[in-house]
Amino acid sequence: MVEAESAPDEKPARPIRDEDGVMDEGFVEQVSQAVLLSDLTTLRHLVGDLHEADLGGLLEALDSEERPKLISLLGGDFDFTALTEVDDAVREEILDELSPQTVAEGVRELDTDDAVYILEDLDEADKKEILDRLSPAERSVLQQGLDYPEGSAGRRMQAETIAVPPFWTVGQTIDYLRETQDLPERFFEIFVADPGHRFVGTVRLDRLLRTKRPVSISDLIEDDRRVVQADDDLEDVARMFQRYDLVAAPVVDKSGRLVGVMTIDDVVDVIEEAADDDVKQLGGVDADEELSDPVREVALSRFRWRFISLIAAFISASVMAMFEAQLSKLVALAVLAPIVASQGGNAATQTMTVAIRALGTGQLGSWNRARFFRREMIVGLLNGVAFAVITGTVSGFWFGNLMLGVVIALAMVATLVVAALAGVVVPLALDKAGIDPAISSGTFVTTVTDVVGFFSFLGIATILLRLG
Amino acid sequence: MVEAESAPDEKPARPIRDEDGVMDEGFVEQVSQAVLLSDLTTLRHLVGDLHEADLGGLLEALDSEERPKLISLLGGDFDFTALTEVDDAVREEILDELSPQTVAEGVRELDTDDAVYILEDLDEADKKEILDRLSPAERSVLQQGLDYPEGSAGRRMQAETIAVPPFWTVGQTIDYLRETQDLPERFFEIFVADPGHRFVGTVRLDRLLRTKRPVSISDLIEDDRRVVQADDDLEDVARMFQRYDLVAAPVVDKSGRLVGVMTIDDVVDVIEEAADDDVKQLGGVDADEELSDPVREVALSRFRWRFISLIAAFISASVMAMFEAQLSKLVALAVLAPIVASQGGNAATQTMTVAIRALGTGQLGSWNRARFFRREMIVGLLNGVAFAVITGTVSGFWFGNLMLGVVIALAMVATLVVAALAGVVVPLALDKAGIDPAISSGTFVTTVTDVVGFFSFLGIATILLRLG
Repeated sequence: MVEAESAPDEKPARPIRDEDGVMDEGFVEQVSQAVLLSDLTTLRHLVGDLHEADLGGLLEALDSEERPKLISLLGGDFDFTALTEVDDAVREEILDELSPQTVAEGVRELDTDDAVYILEDLDEADKKEILDRLSPAERSVLQQGLDYPEGSAGRRMQAETIAVPPFWTVGQTIDYLRETQDLPERFFEIFVADPGHRFVGTVRLDRLLRTKRPVSISDLIEDDRRVVQADDDLEDVARMFQRYDLVAAPVVDKSGRLVGVMTIDDVVDVIEEAADDDVKQLGGVDADEELSDPVREVALSRFRWRFISLIAAFISASVMAMFEAQLSKLVALAVLAPIVASQGGNAATQTMTVAIRALGTGQLGSWNRARFFRREMIVGLLNGVAFAVITGTVSGFWFGNLMLGVVIALAMVATLVVAALAGVVVPLALDKAGIDPAISSGTFVTTVTDVVGFFSFLGIATILLRLG
Repeated sequence: MVEAESAPDEKPARPIRDEDGVMDEGFVEQVSQAVLLSDLTTLRHLVGDLHEADLGGLLEALDSEERPKLISLLGGDFDFTALTEVDDAVREEILDELSPQTVAEGVRELDTDDAVYILEDLDEADKKEILDRLSPAERSVLQQGLDYPEGSAGRRMQAETIAVPPFWTVGQTIDYLRETQDLPERFFEIFVADPGHRFVGTVRLDRLLRTKRPVSISDLIEDDRRVVQADDDLEDVARMFQRYDLVAAPVVDKSGRLVGVMTIDDVVDVIEEAADDDVKQLGGVDADEELSDPVREVALSRFRWRFISLIAAFISASVMAMFEAQLSKLVALAVLAPIVASQGGNAATQTMTVAIRALGTGQLGSWNRARFFRREMIVGLLNGVAFAVITGTVSGFWFGNLMLGVVIALAMVATLVVAALAGVVVPLALDKAGIDPAISSGTFVTTVTDVVGFFSFLGIATILLRLG
């Protein structure tokens, strides 16, 4: 990607980000200097025409005491939209430092979706202080957005829409768009609504542009009428956008009245966040954890996740403890037991990962569950046999005890089949019970495979090696 | 989400998907019956006006022998775009069954990005057979797309664009749009190009609509001129779209000539795929694995991943084997050693997951690497101490040996600090070396924690419990 060549009268492009999209250190340093020296001229020159995403990235890169200072220095020139582009922890810290008056003035300039995004995490008292400084009309629009439940479309919609009556012509509509000043800054579609402001249909801008002036708007309404309910879950809305390649969709309330519009830019963030949550939760990290969270918070949330896995580890250990007599007779068992358990854990994790992603993206339905289950069981059995042969052979020769090789081979097949079973069944069962499988499957599944791995290996050893 | 109420002359909406977006089994069954009976009337009624995404979902839900049969039955009414919505394995199977003539006719109707997507994975001979059946003009456009490297913007761009000269007025442009038949079906922006077809700028449709007819197009060009090079990496392009909230961007070749347009719908798929790849790779699954892949392929790719982890498991086991004498003197060591190793593995996985996601989304730069490293080390130390106290106390009482509790506590602190270190350093080092950290960090990191866990626990035990 490049920026097109600059016209001669423009400033040369500064390197703001490197090719991986990481903020440039030199640029951050220059800004930091200008903030420290309160050098407004340099600061304006550096950040005056930055895109909100770059301004947000810059804020994150600055030290925490420099951030509110930069905002105060820029005053009315600071685009509050940038605050929607930073980590929650950074935003909260900045908002704490700014006066309610400053925040109210900044928020007033924003689209409602951005304003709601900035206000929603504040505590009630701060929120009220800021809202009280807005006009009743401004306040009521924001309050409406804030009243929708967290994670619903109503929270991310833009309340400003363009709606025309169905009986207008293309010409009337174009004249209206040309003459009306107070329209949303950017729009992809116009909506058609009846006199009660009930949603009737959508007209794409390209169709509007390609149609002659006398044609009636009602003739241009799209067949494909996908509508978002204000209380729909944002992740469901995101799937709908993704599936049907939408760039915008009308948001209606329970009585069908048009209350806003969802646009693809917000949806992209929701898709990214949903995937991000899955990755983190599978890695045993809280979905809300962000890079700028303070040590205390991170340590606590990680502790919570791991405490459960510690309990699980003690459960598996107590299975091993049941076989103390056998372990003391043949130490090779102690050396090999973790191999069986860890291979079981890896196999289960593979299956579980695929199941969780397929569930999360709506690819796993009743029509292919049986097929998926069968496939995973066969894969588990095939790889169980393959790894049994390899592990058995290596172990048998290592300890000069071929019967020990047979024992570990048998335990391996049993563990890997159980691993495949657990990897499919646990996420599906949790999903059915309405629990997010990404959060809770991991510890469950590896505890099962540890227990089965230890028990089958040491149990088979007891019998075949006559250690009982 | 709901579909707006049907007008009286339309068919009532069939339940095609449930609320999670999963294809409805009853609907699939109906279609399957109609295909079996070659009942074209029912089939047309059921799938005639399906969105390409639903048609794709339906194809996946059908049995493999029914898929080509459905396509043959529908003939020219089958929308080949649906083939861009199915898993690779399903698409390959279907294309194998269809005649080159059928594919050529289907592909001819598509936008270039969709046509290239369908053709790119075919082997050269099949590709040639299909391309030979197209007109020279059609062929050359597709060949151009196919000539760009895999994973580049050129492969996913739509070659059809709308470009006007800068000296045209708004009125001329609107008239051109109204009168020209052969324009892309859907567009969000129009481009401005000079007589050499070099890209000059972008005009948003909403601005065009809101401007009076005599104004010159050159006055409407956006300041924010983000341009994609045809050989740019798709993931980089996706990050740019996401960062700057784009819905479309011009694609230019090396000499700055406009060759196509990238649109947000393709970009959303790229973002989703990139996140999906991370999830799978962290779970030890090949990024290319799909739900409809055959058993043989899945078993083999999973085997490859796990074979490496088996070698790692033997390395850790050989560390335990170094302490055989100690293990046979005190079996409790064998019972507790896996706890230390697994806690180390969990801690490292947490840190590694955060590092990999931050690297993947460009959030981890030189300006915050030190901060992140410091935070993770402190978290590792804090949680190391916390888990040391818990594990030490429980273990000491369990085996009635308080010194054993001290041993495991010390080993825990050492292992968790090393885990944090490995969790940060391994992904960063792999990333620096140009290796995707999501693919290779996991086994690396857990091998380190297993080895350190076993070695520190058994080593400290040897010294403090005088087992040497």
